[in-house]
Amino acid sequence: MVGGGKDAFIGAIHRHAAGMDGLIELVCGALSINPDIAKDSGKSLFLAEDRIYLTFEEMITKESQLPEDKRMDFLTIVTPNFAHFAPAKMAMEHGFHVVIEKPIAFTLDEALELKRIQEATGLMLCLTHTYSGYPLVKQARQMVKEGKLGNIRKVWVEYPQGWLSKLTEREGNAQAAWRTDPKRSGKSGCMGDIGTHAAHLAEYITGLKITQICADLNVMVEGRMLDDDGNVLLKFENGSAGVLMASQVAAGEENALKIRVYGEKGGIEWAQHEPNTMLVKWLDQPTQIYRAGGNYADRLSSFAVHNSRTPGGHPEGYLEAFANIYRNFSLTLGTRIDGTTPTAEMLDFPGVEDGIRGMAFIDNVVLSSQSSTKWTPHTV
Amino acid sequence: MVGGGKDAFIGAIHRHAAGMDGLIELVCGALSINPDIAKDSGKSLFLAEDRIYLTFEEMITKESQLPEDKRMDFLTIVTPNFAHFAPAKMAMEHGFHVVIEKPIAFTLDEALELKRIQEATGLMLCLTHTYSGYPLVKQARQMVKEGKLGNIRKVWVEYPQGWLSKLTEREGNAQAAWRTDPKRSGKSGCMGDIGTHAAHLAEYITGLKITQICADLNVMVEGRMLDDDGNVLLKFENGSAGVLMASQVAAGEENALKIRVYGEKGGIEWAQHEPNTMLVKWLDQPTQIYRAGGNYADRLSSFAVHNSRTPGGHPEGYLEAFANIYRNFSLTLGTRIDGTTPTAEMLDFPGVEDGIRGMAFIDNVVLSSQSSTKWTPHTV
Amino acid sequence: MVGGGKDAFIGAIHRHAAGMDGLIELVCGALSINPDIAKDSGKSLFLAEDRIYLTFEEMITKESQLPEDKRMDFLTIVTPNFAHFAPAKMAMEHGFHVVIEKPIAFTLDEALELKRIQEATGLMLCLTHTYSGYPLVKQARQMVKEGKLGNIRKVWVEYPQGWLSKLTEREGNAQAAWRTDPKRSGKSGCMGDIGTHAAHLAEYITGLKITQICADLNVMVEGRMLDDDGNVLLKFENGSAGVLMASQVAAGEENALKIRVYGEKGGIEWAQHEPNTMLVKWLDQPTQIYRAGGNYADRLSSFAVHNSRTPGGHPEGYLEAFANIYRNFSLTLGTRIDGTTPTAEMLDFPGVEDGIRGMAFIDNVVLSSQSSTKWTPHTV
Amino acid sequence: MVGGGKDAFIGAIHRHAAGMDGLIELVCGALSINPDIAKDSGKSLFLAEDRIYLTFEEMITKESQLPEDKRMDFLTIVTPNFAHFAPAKMAMEHGFHVVIEKPIAFTLDEALELKRIQEATGLMLCLTHTYSGYPLVKQARQMVKEGKLGNIRKVWVEYPQGWLSKLTEREGNAQAAWRTDPKRSGKSGCMGDIGTHAAHLAEYITGLKITQICADLNVMVEGRMLDDDGNVLLKFENGSAGVLMASQVAAGEENALKIRVYGEKGGIEWAQHEPNTMLVKWLDQPTQIYRAGGNYADRLSSFAVHNSRTPGGHPEGYLEAFANIYRNFSLTLGTRIDGTTPTAEMLDFPGVEDGIRGMAFIDNVVLSSQSSTKWTPHTV
Repeated sequence: MVGGGKDAFIGAIHRHAAGMDGLIELVCGALSINPDIAKDSGKSLFLAEDRIYLTFEEMITKESQLPEDKRMDFLTIVTPNFAHFAPAKMAMEHGFHVVIEKPIAFTLDEALELKRIQEATGLMLCLTHTYSGYPLVKQARQMVKEGKLGNIRKVWVEYPQGWLSKLTEREGNAQAAWRTDPKRSGKSGCMGDIGTHAAHLAEYITGLKITQICADLNVMVEGRMLDDDGNVLLKFENGSAGVLMASQVAAGEENALKIRVYGEKGGIEWAQHEPNTMLVKWLDQPTQIYRAGGNYADRLSSFAVHNSRTPGGHPEGYLEAFANIYRNFSLTLGTRIDGTTPTAEMLDFPGVEDGIRGMAFIDNVVLSSQSSTKWTPHTV
Repeated sequence: MVGGGKDAFIGAIHRHAAGMDGLIELVCGALSINPDIAKDSGKSLFLAEDRIYLTFEEMITKESQLPEDKRMDFLTIVTPNFAHFAPAKMAMEHGFHVVIEKPIAFTLDEALELKRIQEATGLMLCLTHTYSGYPLVKQARQMVKEGKLGNIRKVWVEYPQGWLSKLTEREGNAQAAWRTDPKRSGKSGCMGDIGTHAAHLAEYITGLKITQICADLNVMVEGRMLDDDGNVLLKFENGSAGVLMASQVAAGEENALKIRVYGEKGGIEWAQHEPNTMLVKWLDQPTQIYRAGGNYADRLSSFAVHNSRTPGGHPEGYLEAFANIYRNFSLTLGTRIDGTTPTAEMLDFPGVEDGIRGMAFIDNVVLSSQSSTKWTPHTV
Repeated sequence: MVGGGKDAFIGAIHRHAAGMDGLIELVCGALSINPDIAKDSGKSLFLAEDRIYLTFEEMITKESQLPEDKRMDFLTIVTPNFAHFAPAKMAMEHGFHVVIEKPIAFTLDEALELKRIQEATGLMLCLTHTYSGYPLVKQARQMVKEGKLGNIRKVWVEYPQGWLSKLTEREGNAQAAWRTDPKRSGKSGCMGDIGTHAAHLAEYITGLKITQICADLNVMVEGRMLDDDGNVLLKFENGSAGVLMASQVAAGEENALKIRVYGEKGGIEWAQHEPNTMLVKWLDQPTQIYRAGGNYADRLSSFAVHNSRTPGGHPEGYLEAFANIYRNFSLTLGTRIDGTTPTAEMLDFPGVEDGIRGMAFIDNVVLSSQSSTKWTPHTV
Repeated sequence: MVGGGKDAFIGAIHRHAAGMDGLIELVCGALSINPDIAKDSGKSLFLAEDRIYLTFEEMITKESQLPEDKRMDFLTIVTPNFAHFAPAKMAMEHGFHVVIEKPIAFTLDEALELKRIQEATGLMLCLTHTYSGYPLVKQARQMVKEGKLGNIRKVWVEYPQGWLSKLTEREGNAQAAWRTDPKRSGKSGCMGDIGTHAAHLAEYITGLKITQICADLNVMVEGRMLDDDGNVLLKFENGSAGVLMASQVAAGEENALKIRVYGEKGGIEWAQHEPNTMLVKWLDQPTQIYRAGGNYADRLSSFAVHNSRTPGGHPEGYLEAFANIYRNFSLTLGTRIDGTTPTAEMLDFPGVEDGIRGMAFIDNVVLSSQSSTKWTPHTV
């Protein structure tokens, strides 16, 4: 693991998620650019002392020199956005698979470069777009794919948070500080951080690409350097229309990602806050409440079942969704080691293409926001 | 009453609402352009035979010839959109106050003409933007006005319906037929019918005017003549940003008007389907569930209280919201008759200015949708 | 109307409900035992001066002397519990139908006496068990009747309120004063006031009689004279088991009547606070959300449809449920006048038998509470 | 681990939960009484071959002969109920701490015997009453303890499931087979399996002991050997009244544990299906929605914070609640190893006293159900 020391947020999340299924063990780390934190964090995580590294370069170099059955199997990168590319590149160049915390890189060019390396090496690159790991998100995707909703007409995805309602980055909040800093976060704040999750979810569920966007990005808190709010009109490749709303100044909201998709025959509604429930709406029948783990005569999709650990009524949450991504990555990795064939369910984790779409979304949404023309194409 | 015979929808709603408080009695009507329906409807509503009229012209003329204490006090117009203007104009010119089902008229010009007549005659004109009649909508408006949420930053209003998901207008549905017909409904379908309600609600609660719009109107059902779906980016006079979404092809949705408003300190969320509950969100406190009729130490606004009939836990609904508009109109009318002064609560019903904003919204949203420029000013 | 003057609560509710459908007009009243309030209330309700009476005896006598087409058609009684019997008896003895606010009388004996008079005179007696007037309650009843849920096994009905959490009756609250006073309210407080509604709802929806009870009644607020809380185990005639919970000291609750019924194949869940929604649960299918006014291929029951005024998504509430009882009573009355045959839907309003069950429930629940034996039969 | 092989349910849950925090590693197991399953399961869990045992006796004996730093630290028992006692006894007698899946034993006598051994050895015994591991359950307990709700008056706990609505035990469902078999499950079915969870939760949150019960247990499905449904009236030590309802024939329900507690000043409502949300109700203020991970000025209890892994809006679920019990047990164990003092938060996991209360509850509820007297004391 690169990053994720004691002062970080997402590193611990990765460790909980990776540990949940007994498939992955943390064996080494370059956990902080601060050597004391790196060492201290490594010890508290029970790492062997000789595998607590101070830089990712040291770690990759030394691990690659270990015998094949002793070295790490893959590298997880949980540093701030600007520091994703270098370790990912070096790891793959030394033969390690990588798991990268979203976004894949700092710029679209870096993302494209990672794609070239990945294709050249044949290694696996996994991107933790967590929200696509929920069982009912997978159920929704399959229902759309099977035509249960008919041709899709309308997509509506929202992601309100309220934690940046004040100028928190000036109040000693380290998370806020780097996420609102263009040098560490990238050219967009809110849209880059959470808008990309929303866009990914919309494309993942509908199986449709967004082709045009019309963006209105805002800085609502005076003194902030990056957008903290935005509304985007969407057009999809099949002509359906949508809206993407993301905000970090929706005071009182936590992490309220929600999506609604409507087709000719019905619609679905799923919200991350209550992720084990999905409403399925029909033109001429009562709305149904689908439940993760539900035991129905017309069974849940194999993708939903594969990504659940508990029977209905035992709620799974964010860490389990996260763990699903790690688990599918690990199971696929296992098939490589065993020489077996991975199932479609195992292969269903986000990768380099999702990362490229995300970086292009950031570019295009910023471009659109600065334009006086209504529609901007959303291409890579 | 003009319109509202046995084959109509909204006429019965007006009668339930007007009858609820014992302040208004239906005394005469020109209830249908079909004479048989007009007569039959009048009888079943217990009208005196000599006050069942066949045309609004006949009704206005004859009623105006009755002694002052026998004639109708005001005229309610519940015809399709294209037939609002003529009876409203004639009624005011004969000295009758009017209540008009939304929209006020067929065109902005007609609306402006009604304003001139209203100002010249000093009569009352009431427009039934029903959703502003709910107690908790009034509570929200007062909370914004009192600064409880701080400066408003974000407004998000949605109005999904699903009843036009098929080409219902060709299947013998009379409602669908006139509402999708530009000759009877006007230049916009979905935006004119329900988008205007959403826009009115947003301006009513925030007390802020929408100043710019960026609209994407769609015809999702092949063969339809007017928009059945639309997404609109909004800018408000104080710089806050918003989205208005309205759809009649959101399959499985009923009449799901919902609004969220966020300010610096907190936000509110209200949905018409469960109108007695409003979420009030705060930056650093748990979300509160406000209830209509709630008995709180920090009391509900006098406007919310005035517009409730029952204590907490006895749900009021659409007809009561509708009745609140009639009741306030009647109470204000009563003060004119008594020579007393109406309270602010009584005067709080939609009128000619709201009607003009609505007609301008339709014009501007259609204009914006046809434009390749991002922002279109929303002025009258 | 007897009772219901300016200082009362339920009288106004009856008037809103009775006025909503244009079928009933208030023509006379003995609105208070305080002559000033009686007169003042009558005037403000636009009663003719000579039909504002000071006692119910005067009203019944004088109205019965009016020509048949001028006199009142029926009498509504909205006085406190102890004063239901006398006007009901006298009214029927003078040939007037009666509508009585629940409970039907002060004692079971009075109720049985009213039954004898009603049977002897052939007049109509309507009891306003409001909650059975909701469309989805009727839908639930029909679904049980049609066997959709299979044989019923479990009934669970709850009615928490919080308004008597303090000794409110000593703080000048007139409602609390008479409802906690055994001389005016009867031998039970909470169970008499709201437990009877819950018991009625359970029997109405399931179509099953409660045959045995095991009650635990409590006085939670020191100094109170009647029970303010109670839990009751139930046995139904088909062997199904249940619980009835009612409380007036559930701090923070409004009027949260809720019922759940489970059969072999599925269950229903309905709550009065959101009365336009009912959950229908199935053994091996997703839970469905039934909506009042819902437009489903497998249509809502004719009883639900008959008792709705608006299409789906236009919420109806407590006053509409109340109005349904008045409307069905009026429509049945209309068939008597016209000599036509009422439909089953029209005849579906609570009457004298429901009143007797209610009075027996109060007797038996008090008896059981005082007994050290587990089960007490619930018979009349 | 004893039990929990490939054909079992709860074993996998324990492993997910124990693995989540990186504090516990599975090192050995006697995973099934079927040797093939035991071996196969052990391999798939990456156990060393020489630590895959075929019986718990073999495992405890051999592990106790390993050097102290190589042997297992504690033993988890996840066998069916009848097989909890023997391995627990033997493990403690060989110096191993134990974690036991609920119920602690097959009979009250066994439970009392385990208590004697635990006291004699000074070892730790942890019982996985999972539902007490949720952060908001701990928040509720602290709010009661701090008097925020005032003196408690009413407790209402319900636990409906529907999975035994048919005679599933005869249809090849192994879970159903042993849980409805008195020889493997004990003298009560539904009450033993889930009623005990409900009773534990009620006592845990209120800090009050149940002192009297009045139970009505039912066998709703013909041919079943143990109760599958039950309703119980409760009295608590402070005089408050309650109801406990548990059912496995509530068709359409999953695992819908829910509790409501009302005091003089307010109440709380928490449901396991949406465990990150708790309603807090007040006499004269709007209901509040507390959220796990919520960032409030008046901070959540240290017990809630200690038992959360993610910030607000990242839902945690059943596995995290389970993991909290393992984590607190491990942290306390860690303090024993380190010679430090555990915090109150660490010590907050269920133990032998909870197990004894549970066994007594089963005994007393069965006794009460068979009695014709209303109240049965609930003592050990």
